[in-house]
Amino acid sequence: LVADAGSTSIGRFANYTVFKGKAALSMKPILPAIRELDSRSSRVYKNGSVILTFWPAVGQRKYDWEKKQVFALSATEVGSLIGLGPTESCEFFHDPSMKSSLEGQVKKSLSISPLGNDNGYFLNLSVVNNIQKTNERLSVPITKAEFTVIRTVLSYVLPHIMGWPQAMMRAQQPTTETK
Amino acid sequence: LVADAGSTSIGRFANYTVFKGKAALSMKPILPAIRELDSRSSRVYKNGSVILTFWPAVGQRKYDWEKKQVFALSATEVGSLIGLGPTESCEFFHDPSMKSSLEGQVKKSLSISPLGNDNGYFLNLSVVNNIQKTNERLSVPITKAEFTVIRTVLSYVLPHIMGWPQAMMRAQQPTTETK
Amino acid sequence: LVADAGSTSIGRFANYTVFKGKAALSMKPILPAIRELDSRSSRVYKNGSVILTFWPAVGQRKYDWEKKQVFALSATEVGSLIGLGPTESCEFFHDPSMKSSLEGQVKKSLSISPLGNDNGYFLNLSVVNNIQKTNERLSVPITKAEFTVIRTVLSYVLPHIMGWPQAMMRAQQPTTETK
Amino acid sequence: LVADAGSTSIGRFANYTVFKGKAALSMKPILPAIRELDSRSSRVYKNGSVILTFWPAVGQRKYDWEKKQVFALSATEVGSLIGLGPTESCEFFHDPSMKSSLEGQVKKSLSISPLGNDNGYFLNLSVVNNIQKTNERLSVPITKAEFTVIRTVLSYVLPHIMGWPQAMMRAQQPTTETK
Repeated sequence: LVADAGSTSIGRFANYTVFKGKAALSMKPILPAIRELDSRSSRVYKNGSVILTFWPAVGQRKYDWEKKQVFALSATEVGSLIGLGPTESCEFFHDPSMKSSLEGQVKKSLSISPLGNDNGYFLNLSVVNNIQKTNERLSVPITKAEFTVIRTVLSYVLPHIMGWPQAMMRAQQPTTETK
Repeated sequence: LVADAGSTSIGRFANYTVFKGKAALSMKPILPAIRELDSRSSRVYKNGSVILTFWPAVGQRKYDWEKKQVFALSATEVGSLIGLGPTESCEFFHDPSMKSSLEGQVKKSLSISPLGNDNGYFLNLSVVNNIQKTNERLSVPITKAEFTVIRTVLSYVLPHIMGWPQAMMRAQQPTTETK
Repeated sequence: LVADAGSTSIGRFANYTVFKGKAALSMKPILPAIRELDSRSSRVYKNGSVILTFWPAVGQRKYDWEKKQVFALSATEVGSLIGLGPTESCEFFHDPSMKSSLEGQVKKSLSISPLGNDNGYFLNLSVVNNIQKTNERLSVPITKAEFTVIRTVLSYVLPHIMGWPQAMMRAQQPTTETK
Repeated sequence: LVADAGSTSIGRFANYTVFKGKAALSMKPILPAIRELDSRSSRVYKNGSVILTFWPAVGQRKYDWEKKQVFALSATEVGSLIGLGPTESCEFFHDPSMKSSLEGQVKKSLSISPLGNDNGYFLNLSVVNNIQKTNERLSVPITKAEFTVIRTVLSYVLPHIMGWPQAMMRAQQPTTETK
């Protein structure tokens, strides 16, 4: 058996993508890396997440994947997004170099704000990179229907990125070999 | 192993059907067609959907399946339906011949509008066929209880027609053969 | 393989039971009976349901299982219960002898009405049996917390009693033998 | 096959933990102990639960696991927590020595009350131990986002701690050997 099953491969193939005027947004789950301790128990040693990828439009219906920016939502940030009321907004701040020598050099922030009249949300990713002297901003409006899809699949996927179904499945497997 | 598992067979056997005065309505999921790339990863190459089938009453409790009309809801249209408030309505327009030489010849529209007093919704399918010179309209009232069933099963099925559980199941399979 | 998997055995062992002053109430799912047509497809030939069992108190914390009365909720009745607002009520009427020579001899009705102040519901089962000349009434108050449990497990179980997960699992099985 | 699969092992490895100023809180599911009666049926002989573990801060970002206090939520208590409105509160009382000679010597109570302005909840565990003459109080504020995570995973896990998915999975297994 394998210890670190699928912590990266899944996301590229199960996703939800919307293409809008100025940018596209794709959303995919990353399962936690789980280490098996013995035939019945296991431990999450790397948390799962939901990766948001934004990439800019460079013409009509043309998008440049090379210029993509990613933002990994933790379980609690997924909870914030799922529980967002129709007039509420939220903002998350990430430093991808946290606890390294580059800490503070790259600042990412994702803000989610209502479009008004219960019409969906505006997702806005800002990436300030002090090393490359760049400051990028990618924005995608999300309709109410698209946000319902996002809320529904994120509610489904949340226990999975936390490793709960995996642990329960393992605990329920018959253990004839250890008896 | 098989590449295009079950993209058509399932729907005929798991459905939800209501019979009303002027027409019947049946609802069934179509799973995405998934191509396995290797033992751990796979790609959705044809999106799943939820097929609505309307067919007219031709007498008391008699319905003519030969005159059926279908409408395939995308993931985002399913989201629109799931998130519909008690006084809200929505409408979808489809062209089954899009990007073919017959584009624009057949126009389908599905409207969902509230019955009033939080009593459910009216589903109305209109199919205008310029080639066959036909214009058909099929209408089914849905009670609040029936709509709760629809909302509940569509919330359940939405991640499946997007291929997320399938991808996660595959990523979690032990890969003894590649070790 | 087996055609009529588990249409009765499951319910006795997975349930949710509350014991109240005048009666007890237990709730259990019955899966649909599914017939396999071939290795990839199957058909529901008997719908699933959720069985409510009421049995009366005959002393302090003593309940008489022999005097139990059952009421089988259909998928749409489960939808009605799940979607019930805090001040709404509903009522279902069943004739267990429908389409037999005894039709109309036994009348069952289940009413669910709010306790007031968002405090839960009162479930009231009435069984009028014209053959045995009996008229029984069993009532169980359900707290808001208990109703949340019921709503949550019935939302979970609804797709299962409709046969959707079963059909999807089957459609996704690898079919090496038919290749 | 095994009768008492995984009634304890799972919880240590699938959990959700928040670290706050005065204490940390961890949450984990305990599956019910299920006894197999034969190849198709089984019975829950010990209910599942959700274990909350509180342990105090003893310095900045330091927590003392040795001083932990636990509180096991029943299915109905989980329902109470899931269904809690933004301005509602609830309180549960447990006696871990119920029906033993020490009954009444240890009193545990867990209260959940709103932080105000739809900003989350305050979880407060009090343990009064008359034998050890101790009176401990552990408090953890939970943000709205964290509570959404808790509500989502507890809604997911509730049918599992009641044994419903397990019973349904078993009922759907092919039973070639008994045919």
